[in-house]
Amino acid sequence: MFNFLQNIPENSREEFFQTVFQNEKVKVERIVSYGQTTPEDFWYDQDEDEFVVILSGSAIIKYENGEIFYLAKGDFLYIKAHQKHKVTYTENPTIWLAVFIV
Amino acid sequence: MFNFLQNIPENSREEFFQTVFQNEKVKVERIVSYGQTTPEDFWYDQDEDEFVVILSGSAIIKYENGEIFYLAKGDFLYIKAHQKHKVTYTENPTIWLAVFIV
Repeated sequence: MFNFLQNIPENSREEFFQTVFQNEKVKVERIVSYGQTTPEDFWYDQDEDEFVVILSGSAIIKYENGEIFYLAKGDFLYIKAHQKHKVTYTENPTIWLAVFIV
Repeated sequence: MFNFLQNIPENSREEFFQTVFQNEKVKVERIVSYGQTTPEDFWYDQDEDEFVVILSGSAIIKYENGEIFYLAKGDFLYIKAHQKHKVTYTENPTIWLAVFIV
């Protein structure tokens, strides 16, 4: 059985992405951030709806329209497909549950 | 923005079910258990795939085939549609993230 809070890889220069479960309808990921943010000139622009829950740490997500979401432990954010977004802050470490609905 | 860990209703005789998000593809629920379990003679038997993550507390889920899952904080379990299952133990309180894939 997978545990989101255990076996966190050591502080890293790269974010750590791990597929926890995947089928034809859904992909469940664990993401561990160590202070990383999205590059200034880049927006995530996905074909799938996504939602995230912060399991540990904190982060800030910004939408292209200027909306800003300050995410603390336990916070839930649903991001519709093609809602351009980026991560402008992550605490070190931050554990994300990310679910992509295909 | 919804937070899974805040505004937990007080100890209750009933489990607390709350729909956090719903569209045509997915339903996201928060469930708070206060020691409740599934009645002895009942099995959950759902048309949708479901997965759960324990955000706080602990629980035990049993499958009809006898498999038993001891779920601690952070644990993830994917339950396929029509996999008959029941909850045989919950800590008071236990906070579940439950996601139903329609």
